[in-house]
Amino acid sequence: MITEVAARLFDVPLDEVLVDAKHGAHTHFQLVTCTVTTSDGVEGTGYTYTGGKGGTAILAMIRDDLAPMLTGQAAEPEALHDAMQWHVHYVARGGIAAFAISAVDIALWDVRGKVTGRSLVEMAGGASDRCGAYCGGIDLGFDLPKLLASVEGYLDRGFHGVKIKVGRDDDQARAAAVRKLIGDDVAFMVDANYALSEAQAIEAARGFMDQGILWFEEPIIPDDYAGYGRIAAATGCPLAMGENLHTEHEFGYALAQSKLSYLQPDASNCGGITGWLRVAGMCRAAGLPVCSHGMQELHVSLVSAQPNAGLIEVHSFPIDRYTTRPLVVEDAKAVAPSEPGTGVTFDWDRLAPFARA
Amino acid sequence: MITEVAARLFDVPLDEVLVDAKHGAHTHFQLVTCTVTTSDGVEGTGYTYTGGKGGTAILAMIRDDLAPMLTGQAAEPEALHDAMQWHVHYVARGGIAAFAISAVDIALWDVRGKVTGRSLVEMAGGASDRCGAYCGGIDLGFDLPKLLASVEGYLDRGFHGVKIKVGRDDDQARAAAVRKLIGDDVAFMVDANYALSEAQAIEAARGFMDQGILWFEEPIIPDDYAGYGRIAAATGCPLAMGENLHTEHEFGYALAQSKLSYLQPDASNCGGITGWLRVAGMCRAAGLPVCSHGMQELHVSLVSAQPNAGLIEVHSFPIDRYTTRPLVVEDAKAVAPSEPGTGVTFDWDRLAPFARA
Repeated sequence: MITEVAARLFDVPLDEVLVDAKHGAHTHFQLVTCTVTTSDGVEGTGYTYTGGKGGTAILAMIRDDLAPMLTGQAAEPEALHDAMQWHVHYVARGGIAAFAISAVDIALWDVRGKVTGRSLVEMAGGASDRCGAYCGGIDLGFDLPKLLASVEGYLDRGFHGVKIKVGRDDDQARAAAVRKLIGDDVAFMVDANYALSEAQAIEAARGFMDQGILWFEEPIIPDDYAGYGRIAAATGCPLAMGENLHTEHEFGYALAQSKLSYLQPDASNCGGITGWLRVAGMCRAAGLPVCSHGMQELHVSLVSAQPNAGLIEVHSFPIDRYTTRPLVVEDAKAVAPSEPGTGVTFDWDRLAPFARA
Repeated sequence: MITEVAARLFDVPLDEVLVDAKHGAHTHFQLVTCTVTTSDGVEGTGYTYTGGKGGTAILAMIRDDLAPMLTGQAAEPEALHDAMQWHVHYVARGGIAAFAISAVDIALWDVRGKVTGRSLVEMAGGASDRCGAYCGGIDLGFDLPKLLASVEGYLDRGFHGVKIKVGRDDDQARAAAVRKLIGDDVAFMVDANYALSEAQAIEAARGFMDQGILWFEEPIIPDDYAGYGRIAAATGCPLAMGENLHTEHEFGYALAQSKLSYLQPDASNCGGITGWLRVAGMCRAAGLPVCSHGMQELHVSLVSAQPNAGLIEVHSFPIDRYTTRPLVVEDAKAVAPSEPGTGVTFDWDRLAPFARA
């Protein structure tokens, strides 16, 4: 039985100001943690991220709306996931509630793993203990030499896949330079953070295809499901999205209408592990690989466990500094942790200086 | 130029615990107010509601994410509406952000009205100064005698339209009893708060049509746009929804797919007056009447001002006790206030005992 739900917020600084095509300047990321304690003395910790806004609202919803309804309940992730969605439904169906519910849900899976002695990769399906991975940066503001140095850094770290932001006038030249640098065998993706119109996206897609991209991510706003479908039909370019879809309904519409080649749910904002696994099942039914957005320290377990595993994104937020197990990469594969629970353990002392609430 | 954005939260008690088919028991409603002050010394106040959850998250988003970006900007509602949507986009696209942005946007319109000396009904189009209105209660838990007494109270207050909650085994008998009580000439609507499956909704719609309902509101989950269309096609029953749609994209999907007869945007959660007016324009283009959900003290101006005016809902939250102008009803029409600004002025002394933050 759940006896306590405690949430905290950290504003974690980035080493430099990072820019993408739609969210402006990132100076820090927000980490909202949620620790659930049970009457058996088991503690599980979940969490969510933001790019710098919404953290206090997520914290308020966990503390004021979710914690009171959770206390006294059995720590069953799936049942509580659905109960939380209905509890805040009028102010939810995505948005802040999706992030708040995700943090709680991940904590409940951490409890489940610790109680049963199972790792997340086992609980999530156990198809493999490792998966493909690529590095992506919030690098739209980097000039070309800095962009290429950054990409070279990804290869030096052992990754065989790279992604860059696009949404500049010189996108095609930058993409060509990156492809020249990495050679033909490294997977290459581009991400517009939905900064383009449909017509711009169609033209850009044709150019990026000349560089042999694996996918073109979020060319247009995520709400325009049919627009993605039209871009794919017009160009044959493989498309991907998912980080901005928060409900099963939204993922359903994307799968039905958007002709995606890859789906990228993010457990930090699609309802936690419960939500992510449901989306993975929808992908499997649709014959699509399931990838992920950000949160690589957790997604390595979720993606590795799927028979339809795609690639995890290794995001540039420096989370590895604040956990006890930096991401393990072997032979260009990311390796899932084997300990019971989610395998993500925060170093609270290192986070402490950035505590906001 | 905006110099201050101050938000407050009130937990306002209801006289009795009220129940609908999907949100459980309501013991109070939450009122989040937002007062914008400009460098010219003009003060405008906006606000939003919840059914009891999410208030502290809305407050946090206004204070921590929106106020800092608004301060120093020109008080232009439309431009700031769009800027706010993008500012919090990663944690938004509906949910808490839709409520927070709505409160700010309404405050900016209040400023605009006070600066220009124009009433909201004028600013919103000025087609008329009054509109049709009906009363609705959160009355699913009422036994039949209490339900009928409640409906009789609506007629006594001068309204020629009534709405009841449905989602019980005895819905059809209750609907028949209400129709018998009110006679053939009073508009009668039913609202399931999306508690039904599509098959249940089709069967229920046929029964309600025997009672000559004006519309059947939210038979199924708001996300299932095409499901609404199938219910309408199968039964010919007029359908309505809108209170759970928060983005222009969601309204667009509903208009394109749901075969609605009425749309009911709520300025407290669809982006304020800016968002509501955009949806009203979409309704006009689609040839549909625009109605409203809750917030009658404000919607009376917005709906009256439209050439495609439908009916406003007069909700059972007792907001009239806390404003300086209780809703005016003449010859069964609700009359819009004529003073500059939104015409909604809170009695802060009466709200003070319920201040939470």
